[in-house]
Amino acid sequence: MRLSEQFTKTRKTVPADETSRNAQLLIQAGYIHKELAGVYAYLPFGIQVLENIKSIVREEMNILGAQELLMTSLQRKELWEKTDRWSDKNVDIWFKTKLKNGSDVGLAWSHEEPVVDMMKSFVSSYRELPIAVYQIQTKFRNELRAKSGIMRGREFIMKDLYGFSRNDEELLEFYNKMQEAYLNIFERVGLGDITYVTYASGGAFTKFSHEFQVVTDAGEDTIYISKDKKLAINEEVYNDESLSQLDLMREELEKVKSAEVGNIFNFGSTKAEELGMHFTDESGQDKPVYISSYGLGITRLMGVITEHFSDDKGLAWPENIAPAKVYIARLGAGEQTINQADELYKLLEDARVTVIYDDRDVRAGEKFADADLLGIPYRIVISDKTVESGTIELKNRKESDSKQIQKDELLKMLGIVG
Amino acid sequence: MRLSEQFTKTRKTVPADETSRNAQLLIQAGYIHKELAGVYAYLPFGIQVLENIKSIVREEMNILGAQELLMTSLQRKELWEKTDRWSDKNVDIWFKTKLKNGSDVGLAWSHEEPVVDMMKSFVSSYRELPIAVYQIQTKFRNELRAKSGIMRGREFIMKDLYGFSRNDEELLEFYNKMQEAYLNIFERVGLGDITYVTYASGGAFTKFSHEFQVVTDAGEDTIYISKDKKLAINEEVYNDESLSQLDLMREELEKVKSAEVGNIFNFGSTKAEELGMHFTDESGQDKPVYISSYGLGITRLMGVITEHFSDDKGLAWPENIAPAKVYIARLGAGEQTINQADELYKLLEDARVTVIYDDRDVRAGEKFADADLLGIPYRIVISDKTVESGTIELKNRKESDSKQIQKDELLKMLGIVG
Repeated sequence: MRLSEQFTKTRKTVPADETSRNAQLLIQAGYIHKELAGVYAYLPFGIQVLENIKSIVREEMNILGAQELLMTSLQRKELWEKTDRWSDKNVDIWFKTKLKNGSDVGLAWSHEEPVVDMMKSFVSSYRELPIAVYQIQTKFRNELRAKSGIMRGREFIMKDLYGFSRNDEELLEFYNKMQEAYLNIFERVGLGDITYVTYASGGAFTKFSHEFQVVTDAGEDTIYISKDKKLAINEEVYNDESLSQLDLMREELEKVKSAEVGNIFNFGSTKAEELGMHFTDESGQDKPVYISSYGLGITRLMGVITEHFSDDKGLAWPENIAPAKVYIARLGAGEQTINQADELYKLLEDARVTVIYDDRDVRAGEKFADADLLGIPYRIVISDKTVESGTIELKNRKESDSKQIQKDELLKMLGIVG
Repeated sequence: MRLSEQFTKTRKTVPADETSRNAQLLIQAGYIHKELAGVYAYLPFGIQVLENIKSIVREEMNILGAQELLMTSLQRKELWEKTDRWSDKNVDIWFKTKLKNGSDVGLAWSHEEPVVDMMKSFVSSYRELPIAVYQIQTKFRNELRAKSGIMRGREFIMKDLYGFSRNDEELLEFYNKMQEAYLNIFERVGLGDITYVTYASGGAFTKFSHEFQVVTDAGEDTIYISKDKKLAINEEVYNDESLSQLDLMREELEKVKSAEVGNIFNFGSTKAEELGMHFTDESGQDKPVYISSYGLGITRLMGVITEHFSDDKGLAWPENIAPAKVYIARLGAGEQTINQADELYKLLEDARVTVIYDDRDVRAGEKFADADLLGIPYRIVISDKTVESGTIELKNRKESDSKQIQKDELLKMLGIVG
């Protein structure tokens, strides 16, 4: 797209009412807009980043045969009472409201209950299992404080997947595959090195649940990591009993701050028993379904990527997350310069390389500052000077020096010609 | 996709608690699930239909240079008080809730106020105008009754676009282009013949607004149509004064029931004046921005398409809306039959023709009934008999007879070979 036509603008100053680095940067660069604390709108570049993350997540979920659906935000009180999770005493982050007839409804902070309740209409026999369904949807959580930008929103986007299995063994097989899929996702968004499978409190169902924690000072959690074994243990279960069960020693662990980007749960048969989800097995017996759930915060992940891939000049997206791969800065008003920049823009777009074309009538310094703040991986300069020398100037966002290259080299590097 | 792997199932009986034809059919066919009255979840086939509609809408909006964003559901009371639309007396469909600190927030039933308020940060000069932004997002409306299925939801999906212009003339130019874009959309989803640009009450800003009304007995509106002039007038403004202003005579108009699928508004400078959105014009003068808004109910449109394209056997989607173009019913267990069906399935998928492959072990009658209920445009039968005769059986959902054709003919018809 041509930057002259984009309605968003970068800001020179850090927004005064934001303390989190991710919100400061994303607002400055025009990716998001703050509606109220913990509630952000997503602008065109922000939407593109979200779509890139969602595509990766969808691919990894679809490979495992999971089917996408879209649940509702409005929730029935009666359903959540069945599992004793309606009361504000048990769940203190509900937003609640009322229908015109006076009945209470809640805004979904999770979809475990409605998904399980719905799946009862579709599952009655062992022949219909296993099944996995997921959605990418808005969640609402009435957080007391919201100071972490898009890393902890009152309204945010989450991927949540639910697995339905015939028995514990089948559940565990799927659970392990999903764990791999999660690691693939974090690898693909560039956080592979610093994401740890983390043992955390399992709640009522199992001894441990598994979290996916990214090491970052912006996080709100504390975990103990073993770099050698590439696993971690959450502070909440960091005690002698857990350590011995996990065969870990205090000496091999390092205490770090981290952000939870995913959390997976094995409910065993408990959830199905609470909500009455049964099936008839091969021998005609009535059995509860074994259920597991797999959450991943899409907007939180975007926040963590922002925090990790940024410097004093702004954002610095990994290639497959960036809203565009290339930033063309056109400098100078020579006819040949304009033609050459227009042509390269068209050539890249036709080859489906995403491009931000800075065709604005502003000075070079402003274009360079914006390219850096927006965090686009490759900056190309086409100027009266490069036209004269018959080269193109290329700079990687993560390097400080630019170099002069031939057009052919550029097209090779971008994978357009072989 | 293979139907044996799909978790949804068709139902033989009409759901007892639904009075609307669209919800009955879509639930029976496994496209949607009712969470509570007027609140529906979308299952895989339903999501596919929604995505097909959204793609068409996005294409038509993007052609006009509109940029996509995503606003928030949670809304600030203070903002809506500025235009006197927070009070339940003035807007009686708010869902309201509270943050932990006690402050009131609402669930967005419209986004006019927040979009205009946000755009103030991005517009200050005439050089930045005109701009158009849009979103496809969930809206919440606390309707007293919700008996029209997905045609009137308490939670539903809407496309809303906002145009920002420098003056009335520029606004009108854009308004007319959008009107064309809307007509393109209704043409492309198969409703072109029965959709009427309809003069309706304009509210405080203009004499008339324009609605897009589809003629259907399932609708809640009454309009007077002129088939010759291909326009209509809403009952609410059907009076001598309006008729004379529109140069219409009672004799040429026919009274029909209809459903409003789109509504476009010209706010002039009023909305900008209320919310303080100004720009500096070429001569340095401070001017209010001219704003127009363009709504289109995505889920409602799906409901209207459902009502219009269905018969006593079930749904009958237009080709570019259907969750799949082809339904392959495999009959018989002969090895050659299975191989031939598998091969055709793979061939079509590789050619990016969307296919539902009914590879289930159920009798022919059930497969045919499901193909009809699901409403897939083309049904192909591969059976022990067709294998023997060297042909393929093809039936169009809208015709009652099938015919035997050669594989080549089929591939030609589907546009796979020339």
